[in-house]
Amino acid sequence: MDPDAVAKAFVEHYYSTFDANRPGLVSLYQEGSMLTFEGQKIQGSQNIVAKLTSLPFQQCKHNITTVDCQPSGPAGGMLVFVSGNLQLAGEQHALKFSQMFHLISNQGNYYVFNDIFRLNYA
Amino acid sequence: MDPDAVAKAFVEHYYSTFDANRPGLVSLYQEGSMLTFEGQKIQGSQNIVAKLTSLPFQQCKHNITTVDCQPSGPAGGMLVFVSGNLQLAGEQHALKFSQMFHLISNQGNYYVFNDIFRLNYA
Repeated sequence: MDPDAVAKAFVEHYYSTFDANRPGLVSLYQEGSMLTFEGQKIQGSQNIVAKLTSLPFQQCKHNITTVDCQPSGPAGGMLVFVSGNLQLAGEQHALKFSQMFHLISNQGNYYVFNDIFRLNYA
Repeated sequence: MDPDAVAKAFVEHYYSTFDANRPGLVSLYQEGSMLTFEGQKIQGSQNIVAKLTSLPFQQCKHNITTVDCQPSGPAGGMLVFVSGNLQLAGEQHALKFSQMFHLISNQGNYYVFNDIFRLNYA
């Protein structure tokens, strides 16, 4: 399987789920998964999705600018590095962000083991 | 060892070496190391440093805004996610960038296995 195609498919799935059905992200994480969101460290799928669903906006749309990926080692993991912008409903200007994911293969399916998100302030 | 302290020390060492003695970065990579620089994929310490030393500027100064880190798995690797800006000599405006490193522990020393760099255009 082409890693770039896997990364692109993951990114499309992740952000379309985030924008349309944020609680549905829970299936992409597991108990050992880690999120660092603007410097705040959170662990476990339930805690991560509680954080993401409690962000102070309801409707949003992620637009992706770049997707880079590399294998993370012999175990079949994959690093995905994303830049893009986040448009919030009712806000004039989109927020620029960068995010990285470490995807771990589990019997042919990937889950997110590491997730680090930062807004890029101008 | 505190992972955040290791990440911060690595970041300071990496960018001070980049700014003062770019060829010296070769010791931070190994043959299997990967760099994706603005979408261009490069592998191996010699090739990576050839790319970094051939960038079309001589003097530069990296200023770091944020450093986040997470363990990448049970093998002792560490993910380091950096945002900052890059001031080039003679340029009025600094360039914003995001970069991630995957550090692998080798008998107590870390080397860079994965490196992904992107400028964040305004």
